[in-house]
Amino acid sequence: MSDALARLTAAFRKLPSVGLKTATRYAYKIIEMSTPEVVEFTSAMLDAKNTIHFCKECGDYTELEICERCVKADKSTICVVRDPRDISAFEKMGTYDGLYHALHGTLDFQKGITPEHIRIKELIQRLKSVNEVIIATNPDIGGELTAAYLAQLIKPLGIKVTRLAHGIPMGGEVEYADEITLSRALNDRKEM
Amino acid sequence: MSDALARLTAAFRKLPSVGLKTATRYAYKIIEMSTPEVVEFTSAMLDAKNTIHFCKECGDYTELEICERCVKADKSTICVVRDPRDISAFEKMGTYDGLYHALHGTLDFQKGITPEHIRIKELIQRLKSVNEVIIATNPDIGGELTAAYLAQLIKPLGIKVTRLAHGIPMGGEVEYADEITLSRALNDRKEM
Repeated sequence: MSDALARLTAAFRKLPSVGLKTATRYAYKIIEMSTPEVVEFTSAMLDAKNTIHFCKECGDYTELEICERCVKADKSTICVVRDPRDISAFEKMGTYDGLYHALHGTLDFQKGITPEHIRIKELIQRLKSVNEVIIATNPDIGGELTAAYLAQLIKPLGIKVTRLAHGIPMGGEVEYADEITLSRALNDRKEM
Repeated sequence: MSDALARLTAAFRKLPSVGLKTATRYAYKIIEMSTPEVVEFTSAMLDAKNTIHFCKECGDYTELEICERCVKADKSTICVVRDPRDISAFEKMGTYDGLYHALHGTLDFQKGITPEHIRIKELIQRLKSVNEVIIATNPDIGGELTAAYLAQLIKPLGIKVTRLAHGIPMGGEVEYADEITLSRALNDRKEM
């Protein structure tokens, strides 16, 4: 394999779940593309990297300082998720119009991920006009631990704390839930 | 989804077997990467596109005018394949040291792919010192048709024409054959 091809294959292997065989196929495809197509690909990559960053408020990806959704959302409810991708899953469902808050991770004391490492302080600062916090972290160890921690922290502030119902299969991920399951889980949310 | 993200997702969807969900995951991963990582990715892409082209002789990918393999190979045998990827499969096996010839396609008269559209003329021009042509096109309709066409063309020149044995499962592809199957198919090749 030529140096240039090996280098491009190595770059593709950094994408999620891409092994050597898939990376090689992708690299070959790049070589087969026309030069304008490859230039567009690289410029789309650089533009996305340069213009997209995290919303100061909710932590979702945005091209603005504070995202459009944070400005126009119903500010009485806030839905707490692990990652921006989980926000996309909720948005696809289309029946929730409150605020979101992406923690950018969940607690994992074994790996040294303590409350200071995820966006918990930022969440607490956003609770002024909120009267319900819906915790939508995944039903896995880190997600459950984080949910319990947040409930303990927020309930004393006199704010209702709810958790998505177990419509989501245990071990599954919010990101992959279909619209109906997610909708059911939202409706059946229980106070913690 | 922001414009920049949509544009990058569209670019990723041009890669083989990449749907919307996978493309979106890849796009998010790019945004999560550090800027130097993204710059390296785009530069690897452009470098591969700019420096890699087809070898004038065998049609494999190379950074040279005539690839190293064409220079140092045993020139008495030539192995005819559909694509450069098939050459990679043979090279992984590691027991063949003759020439290769990538046709860049197989005949398909329904789709209008006639002998002028694939590298058959170039193959004929390379047969001077060759005393055996091994036809290693896939055992599918286009591959079998091309093999038959080439045998008819080359046998009158007094050159032995062989075909890979059916060690390769019918409907399978040369590119995906494991080393043992491919090695067996090479050893059992039969004169056409």
